[in-house]
Amino acid sequence: MMMALIWKTLNTNMNNNYVAIMAGGVGSRFWPSSRISKPKQFLDIMGVGKSLLRLTFERFLNVCPAEHIYIVTNLDYIDLVKEQLPELGAHQILAEPSRNNTAPCVAYTALKLNALNPKANFVVAPSDHIILNEPKFVAEIQKALAFTAQNDALLTLGITPSRPDTGYGYIRFQDNIGFHNHDETIHKVVQFTEKPPYEKALEYVKSGEYVWNAGIFVWSTKSILKSFKENAPEILDILDDGKKVFNTDAEQAFINEAYPRTPNISIDYAIMERADNVFTIPTEFGWSDLGTWGSLHAEAPKDERGNAINASLALIAETSNCLIKASDKKLVVINGLDDFIVVDEDDVLMIYPKSKEQEIKQVTAEVARAIGVQYL
Amino acid sequence: MMMALIWKTLNTNMNNNYVAIMAGGVGSRFWPSSRISKPKQFLDIMGVGKSLLRLTFERFLNVCPAEHIYIVTNLDYIDLVKEQLPELGAHQILAEPSRNNTAPCVAYTALKLNALNPKANFVVAPSDHIILNEPKFVAEIQKALAFTAQNDALLTLGITPSRPDTGYGYIRFQDNIGFHNHDETIHKVVQFTEKPPYEKALEYVKSGEYVWNAGIFVWSTKSILKSFKENAPEILDILDDGKKVFNTDAEQAFINEAYPRTPNISIDYAIMERADNVFTIPTEFGWSDLGTWGSLHAEAPKDERGNAINASLALIAETSNCLIKASDKKLVVINGLDDFIVVDEDDVLMIYPKSKEQEIKQVTAEVARAIGVQYL
Repeated sequence: MMMALIWKTLNTNMNNNYVAIMAGGVGSRFWPSSRISKPKQFLDIMGVGKSLLRLTFERFLNVCPAEHIYIVTNLDYIDLVKEQLPELGAHQILAEPSRNNTAPCVAYTALKLNALNPKANFVVAPSDHIILNEPKFVAEIQKALAFTAQNDALLTLGITPSRPDTGYGYIRFQDNIGFHNHDETIHKVVQFTEKPPYEKALEYVKSGEYVWNAGIFVWSTKSILKSFKENAPEILDILDDGKKVFNTDAEQAFINEAYPRTPNISIDYAIMERADNVFTIPTEFGWSDLGTWGSLHAEAPKDERGNAINASLALIAETSNCLIKASDKKLVVINGLDDFIVVDEDDVLMIYPKSKEQEIKQVTAEVARAIGVQYL
Repeated sequence: MMMALIWKTLNTNMNNNYVAIMAGGVGSRFWPSSRISKPKQFLDIMGVGKSLLRLTFERFLNVCPAEHIYIVTNLDYIDLVKEQLPELGAHQILAEPSRNNTAPCVAYTALKLNALNPKANFVVAPSDHIILNEPKFVAEIQKALAFTAQNDALLTLGITPSRPDTGYGYIRFQDNIGFHNHDETIHKVVQFTEKPPYEKALEYVKSGEYVWNAGIFVWSTKSILKSFKENAPEILDILDDGKKVFNTDAEQAFINEAYPRTPNISIDYAIMERADNVFTIPTEFGWSDLGTWGSLHAEAPKDERGNAINASLALIAETSNCLIKASDKKLVVINGLDDFIVVDEDDVLMIYPKSKEQEIKQVTAEVARAIGVQYL
């Protein structure tokens, strides 16, 4: 009797479950592989024969059917998405005419899904992360979806920190749940701290009360739209006018006009840091945001000297802890390097110390300044 | 009266003077820029818009007219020579069907020039060296030609050593000339020492009695052929059979058959170390054999941090004492390298410590062993 009820609930939820994959970023820290014309999420960064977007899409097929997976991307990348995800109908690809950060992107998605199904309950996830323990990830997502289907809650998956990384946002959670749920693995969030200084980060990691904000969110359209109304009405005011045209042929024209008028603001800043119904599931499933070349080096298979080599033709000697990437047609001969990133990508060769990887994001601007040519 | 006589002598010599530029080498220490299909001498290694061969040819136009300049090269490079030296007639390009080192090459050239003009007096010079002080070089060559026109002498230009380099041959010379000539700058050679150990090289440099063997020789066809007869008759025996066909349409067919049968031996070993009529002019004219990437780095213009950069599009920071070469189409971003050679050449990227430049000659063999593909 109990089993049947649960099954019914899960089944109902399944039909209301959606996934929105955000694939509009430019991945500037992965330059020169990642370019504006073909950013990181569209590349086979891991060298496995599939792009990060494709890997993300296939991962979510364990959560809901392809027809319930939506991609939010920039207008410029529509063809890339269609090419890499031929399963999707045109209506499943949301095209942003401008880069306005994640809050407008989530609001648009929520409004569109809500117009389609007012009971929609959905995951928002980046397209360019890797997750090694897929079954655990899927289980956590299922748990989160079940929770947000039943509660007016905004949930963000929290990654148990493995190091005092100063590049992430930290989320402090309460020990107990104290909500309409008996699953003790779901915790109330008490505070967001964006990119803390090292000392703080170290303290957070030691305390055991913090997790990293992975940018993977779960909520119902009802809850997130309610929160937008309360915390970021200026975004909703602009996009809400499209209510009657969402999921019609007139949608894109409306978005092309309205979307660029929304403020450029992140979902963390617009909603998560302001709302008081934020929850997290502290967990760990082999997650990496592949934010930098160094993080790819950390995740990639390495030789006995710690070199991650993504090149078919390579003669590497007296070299250690390097990440080396070149096309299949290029012979790479390297001797005597330690802790470097070497990327040979079409018209660019970059040789950069791994310890300075955070600078790479600025290199394109420096190149433009120094030689007057944009390599974006 | 005296002036007129000298003028007449010089003029006569001029008509008998020839230059043979040796352009058949493969330049393996300049890999990956230098390839078997287009070795070093055919490349614009200095980034001045002209190949080393072209620079060498133009330098010798100050010594004799273009019609008296001959190029000895491999059959494979005939088209490259014609393309780079369109001034030359086909008969001025000697094509070796095999790589038999310099002794057979000199013997062939001497026999051919002798058949053309028994009074021929000629310079043998590599095609891939650089000479910065051209007027001084030309003056030394003129002096040498005047000397060998009058004397049965084999002359090699000697470079005053600037460092105890163990990669060169050292020539010990006598303080006085003791020959039919009053020019005290021409010295009798007493000993050749090929690539001495460091201690020896240091001793030689300190003594002031040694010069480097630059591989630039001057002699009459009569003298060199006489010396071949005495010291390396096995080479002459084979090539002398062509006497009747040199400078006719039948020459190449004869060479194709006979040349590969000659022993593989250098002119230094076959003649210079054995003959007792060897002379040198100790001198210095900004010479470099550009034997390695490091020697190119030494000669090339450098930035304030000692980087020699031959790349149109480069953003180089925190980098010193490097040689960086890439095509005009490639953006090169380098940070944090010291004392490296970085060459991006078509299908090869090489990053190698400058201190290990002597290993580069072996890299192609290692590549073939490691990945089963020849990059020659």
